[in-house]
Order: sequence, then structure tokens, then C-alpha cells
Amino acid sequence: MDQAELPDITHAHVAFDDGLTLECGVALRRLTVAYRTYGRLNADRSNAILVCHALTGDQYVAETHPVTGKPGWWEMVVGPGLPIDTERFFVICANVLGGCMGSTGPRSPRDDTDRPDAARWGTDFPPVTIRDMVRAQKRLVDHLGIARLFAVIGGSMGGMQVLEWAASYPEAVFAAIPIATAANHSAQNIAFNEVGRQAIFADPDWLGGQYWAHGRVPARGLAVARMVAHITYLSEQALTRKFGRRLRGAQQAALFDDTFEVESYLRHQGSSFVRRFDAASYLTITRATDYFDLAADHGGDLSAPFRGTRTRFCIISFSSDWLYPTEESRVIARALNRVAANVSFVEIASDKGHDAFLLDEPDFHRTLAGFLAGCAEHAGLPA
Amino acid sequence: MDQAELPDITHAHVAFDDGLTLECGVALRRLTVAYRTYGRLNADRSNAILVCHALTGDQYVAETHPVTGKPGWWEMVVGPGLPIDTERFFVICANVLGGCMGSTGPRSPRDDTDRPDAARWGTDFPPVTIRDMVRAQKRLVDHLGIARLFAVIGGSMGGMQVLEWAASYPEAVFAAIPIATAANHSAQNIAFNEVGRQAIFADPDWLGGQYWAHGRVPARGLAVARMVAHITYLSEQALTRKFGRRLRGAQQAALFDDTFEVESYLRHQGSSFVRRFDAASYLTITRATDYFDLAADHGGDLSAPFRGTRTRFCIISFSSDWLYPTEESRVIARALNRVAANVSFVEIASDKGHDAFLLDEPDFHRTLAGFLAGCAEHAGLPA
Repeated sequence: MDQAELPDITHAHVAFDDGLTLECGVALRRLTVAYRTYGRLNADRSNAILVCHALTGDQYVAETHPVTGKPGWWEMVVGPGLPIDTERFFVICANVLGGCMGSTGPRSPRDDTDRPDAARWGTDFPPVTIRDMVRAQKRLVDHLGIARLFAVIGGSMGGMQVLEWAASYPEAVFAAIPIATAANHSAQNIAFNEVGRQAIFADPDWLGGQYWAHGRVPARGLAVARMVAHITYLSEQALTRKFGRRLRGAQQAALFDDTFEVESYLRHQGSSFVRRFDAASYLTITRATDYFDLAADHGGDLSAPFRGTRTRFCIISFSSDWLYPTEESRVIARALNRVAANVSFVEIASDKGHDAFLLDEPDFHRTLAGFLAGCAEHAGLPA
Repeated sequence: MDQAELPDITHAHVAFDDGLTLECGVALRRLTVAYRTYGRLNADRSNAILVCHALTGDQYVAETHPVTGKPGWWEMVVGPGLPIDTERFFVICANVLGGCMGSTGPRSPRDDTDRPDAARWGTDFPPVTIRDMVRAQKRLVDHLGIARLFAVIGGSMGGMQVLEWAASYPEAVFAAIPIATAANHSAQNIAFNEVGRQAIFADPDWLGGQYWAHGRVPARGLAVARMVAHITYLSEQALTRKFGRRLRGAQQAALFDDTFEVESYLRHQGSSFVRRFDAASYLTITRATDYFDLAADHGGDLSAPFRGTRTRFCIISFSSDWLYPTEESRVIARALNRVAANVSFVEIASDKGHDAFLLDEPDFHRTLAGFLAGCAEHAGLPA
């Protein structure tokens, strides 16, 4: 397993010297938000779309990734003439709080001590919530002088941020598109995350969380975490279509080799992930998703935060997504309907599983483009 | 994590000095089959039921387990007056080849070398197949003087053995009941198994497979493997009903504690498993399930091994089982129908997931009892 540590790159960012007090009570003295933008903000600052990334995504939405050298994670969706058209919209994406691509997180210099051996937060980084992530993004949006976002869009954990944006800052969100997401994590979601965390803790290079201070990386554990998560991102049909039971050369049962193609694929997913992600960030961010529970934050009533909202919602799910099944999107749609919100709900027929929002799904792209076009008309955006 | 090694207990067994040549070509010089029986074999030896255990089960079906001190895994089903009535039937269950409860497997003394430092096979134990397991069981059944089993019954990997029995020894199986199983492993099944294997390999106490020679146990890795497998045994509904999002005392987001009840439950499942199972056995047996492909063994035609069969089949699936979904049972039923076999197919409505076959499911128990009663009549067994 590659033991190379995630490189320290300087990402474009804005620093807020007044810091941020987290929901857990810890006050971060400094807050850095790393972000990228695409397209141009118009004169009246009315064409901004905030894209919220998923668990292991980042701000490199529509350009080559500086660490992996691979295309941005949503190049199929964000760009000139694409569903999120950068010739029309100004697209912003920020690395989440707790992430490892330049925003304040476990890899940041800690600001609560002068101990020379504690240059980074590491696993002492305080727990963050989806709401904390959104509050950090709001600082960025304010900094850019944008009073109202035309749209907030995101899939999976990105969709949780979309819901939190619409709940916390309804006047700042004209349209909200939560994709393949849920208003809270199910016991099964929590269980899969917990397996990933335990795999990281079991790695000898975890060193009780002090790996970063010793130049080590719990690469095997993090790879196992990625592998199990990756299975949940795909449907059984997608896995079968991609790999079936095809063998990789070897004809005879072997105990240790990756004999089936699906194994080789998963191992590759695991090991390439380790080169671009940090274990402490993985723990911090999975915890944030586990704790997300929008109804619980509002007295057990998922409708409550949306009462009187003028935001236009388009809720999108995928039929074969078993990580965030359509039913969980329906729960959100029903909560919005109860307060007579302006809500569309679309289930896209797809056999690609949860990951469909990242893949070539023409129906999904058409839905996204159509909803944005309709909203742009209502908002009076120039065509 | 408990580092106590699995105790070396002497299990009731039969030893075959002529050994067994495995499908992979390796000849085991000695073959030991550890087994338990319940009830009494009748005079014409016509009332024997072979129960085949699942991946991490063993021969202690209906009595206190000698290692854990817990009840047998099928005490709800096997016993006097129960669906598999030990007042009527003679029930046999053997620890599978490759297991760790007394049958030949990675913990057995190796018989291909006189090296003093290689007392046990460990990870050098050759790969075994489901067919190898069944061939070892056949030796036991022959040894007991039973020419024809009244029934072969098993769930999950036990169901694979049932199918293999009916395919390999049709004249020796009057009735076959494969439960919650499949004729091969899907890419998703293989993928989940692979995550478990990688978690074991990532454990520092794995020691490249030599843990057993150093008195070490890759307990954390094996526990992670058990945790991920355990999630696949339960339905999302069952997990939600059992745990929902209930917190365990702590009110504040914590990075490392098991804050959600489902986490605490999974950690317990993982750590208690380690005390009764061996990592090399886990690898050996998961590999056997991955390689199982009954159609591929018969020129790609799942009907082929059943042509002309007189065995009566009852195929049982559970509606919420997503590890071996009902559709995979239907594939077996259709293959049997194509050769006009005597086959019943029952999907039990249950929200308990794959594990339903181990739990209190009255409909399932009634189905089992009813099918056995009908077969007993046809077989002319005294009531």
C-alpha cells in the first residue's frame, strides 16, 4: 500500500480571522474556506449557484484535480452548455469544514495551543456538523457579496447541506436541489460508516490517531473504509453488469489474490482514495453525516424549518439507490408539502445506484437543466 | 480487543485415514469430520436429516455451545416437537471442511510436512469448495451407514451445500430444503466478502498469515469483517427497528466513542465473534462461497445437475433478504422447473432480512414443518 502522505498544496481560499464557534461549543480562532468558482458573477450578483460536495468530494468540480490529475468530479454537469451552464451561472464550490483540501480541518494548524509538537489538529479536531459546514459556506458567500444564491445543489452529503441551507437561510436560497440524500442517516448508514471507522482504527499505522505526527498514513484501514463505502454507492445490478463473476486470469481458487475482477476494482478504489484523502477528515466527515438529523434539530418536525419558505425545491432520487432510497427523498417531499412549499419530486429510473448523480444519466441531467431554466425565468434572470 | 486465542477443544468427530483429495488437486492425507447428532436413527436408517450450517455456524445446532456457552444456533427449529422434530428425525450436523470447530481446516495439524515450526496448516491450508465440504459430509453419512438422507436442510452457505448435495448425490437425498441462498455469489456478495478479507489483512496481528504461529489473533480485522457481514445479514428495517438513531448516553458528537446504539451492537458482534472463530477459517470459507457457481460447474446450465432427479425440493426465501434476494431463489426454482423436478417455492414475508432463517419466524417454521410432514408421508416414514 502506498504510504505517501497527502501532499500539502496551497488551495485558493479565504481566511476569516474572527474564526467560527462550532455547534459542539469549540471556538475555532481561525476559519479558512478553500473554494473554486466557474463562470462569472453577473452585475446584480443574482446568478450564483453553490454546489455542495459529497463525503469524499471536494471543490474541484469542473477542472483537473491538483492531487490526482483526474477530471473534476462533476465535469459532466458543470461547464459551458452543460446542465449547470457556466456561461449563464456563476458556480461556487467550497471544500467542507473538516475536509482535507484546504478548508479548516484535521490537517490545519491547530490554533488552541502553542505546543510545538502539535502543529496540526489531527484527531483533536473538534467534531463538526452539517450545519457547521453550511455556516462556513455562508461566510464565503457573504464574503463574495452574494445576498441570495440563485441555487444550492448537491448530492448525498451535499444534499444534506442543501437541506440545511434552505432550513437555516431560507431568504438566501432561491432554489434548492437536494439529490440522492436524506433528512437523517438510517441505522444502516451509520453502521456502514462505523465499519469504515473501525477499519481505520485497526490499522497499525493509525497510531491511536497520532499518525500525522509520525509521517505515517493508516492507508490499509482507510482503503478498507473506502471499499465498503464504495459497495454502498453502487447497485447490485451495476456491480453485476460491470464485473459479474468474471475472473482475473487465475483459474484456481486462491486465498489471497484478487481473483475476481470486482476485487481488483475495489482494491484499486481503496488504494487510489488513500492518495487523496486524510483518515482524520474521513472520521470527522462521516461523523457529521451520522449526526445529521434535520427533524430532530427542529423538535422532531421535519416541516418546521420550512414553514413559510419561498425557496423552490426540486428533490431528485434514483430508483436503484439503496444507500439513500427514494423513500427517504419522499419523506422530505412530504414534509415540504405539509407546509405548502413549492416542491417538485423526481425519481430517476436508473440501475447505477447511489453514484448515479455522478455518472452519465441523461434523464437526471435533463431534469436538472429543466428545473434551473424554469427557476431562472421565475427569478427574472436574463437568458 | 480480546486477544485470547480460540480454545483447543476436542470435538466429537470421526477421522478418515484415507484422507480426501480436494477439487484444487491437493490431497489431504487425513480427514477429520467433527459432528453432532440429535434424536435417534431408526431401524431402517430412513429418518436422518442432515443440517448444513452457514458461514460462521457450526455443528452445535441444538445444544449449548462449548466455547460461547450460548444456546445452539437453531434451537428454535431443531428439537422435540419443533419443526425439525428430534422425536421423529435423527438430525446430523457436521462442522464444514475448512472450519474451526474440529473438522479439518486451517487449525488442524498439517500432514504434508514434518517441519516442527509448522504444526498447523494456518493460511497454507488449501482452498476448499462447497463441493469439497459436501464430499466430506458424504463420508460422514456413509460412515453412519445411511444410504439415503431423508432430508438435507440449510440456510445461506448451508443452502449452497444443500444444492450441491442434491446435484452430486441425487439418490442419497429424498428431500432438499435450500433456504435464503443462491446458486452462485453475486458481484456484491463477493465484494462484501473481499472487504472482510482486506480488513483481516490490514490487522497488525495478521502477521502475513503467521499469527497462529506467534500466539496472536488478528482480532480487530476479524471483528471488522464480522461487522460488515453482520450488516448484510439484517434488513434496513430490522436495523431501524432495533436501533433507529438512538444515542447511547452521550449527547455530543464524539469522534471515537460508539455513540449510536447500532455502533455499540456492531462492536459487540465483532468482538464476541473473534472469541469463537479463526481468521484463516474465515478466509477459507468466504472464498468457498465466492467460488460457488453450480451452473458453471455444469456447462453453464443450472438445470443440468438436476435432470432426472427424484429429490423433492422446497426453496425458501425471505422478502427482505438483500444478501440472497428472493430473485436468486427463483432462479433455482426455474432451473428445477425446466427439468420437471418436484419443487415448491415459498417466499416468506419478513422484515428481518437474511438472518430471518435463524430467528423467530412462525411462517417459516410452519412451512418447514409442513413440507417435512408431507415428504415423510411420501417416504412412508412412520408418523
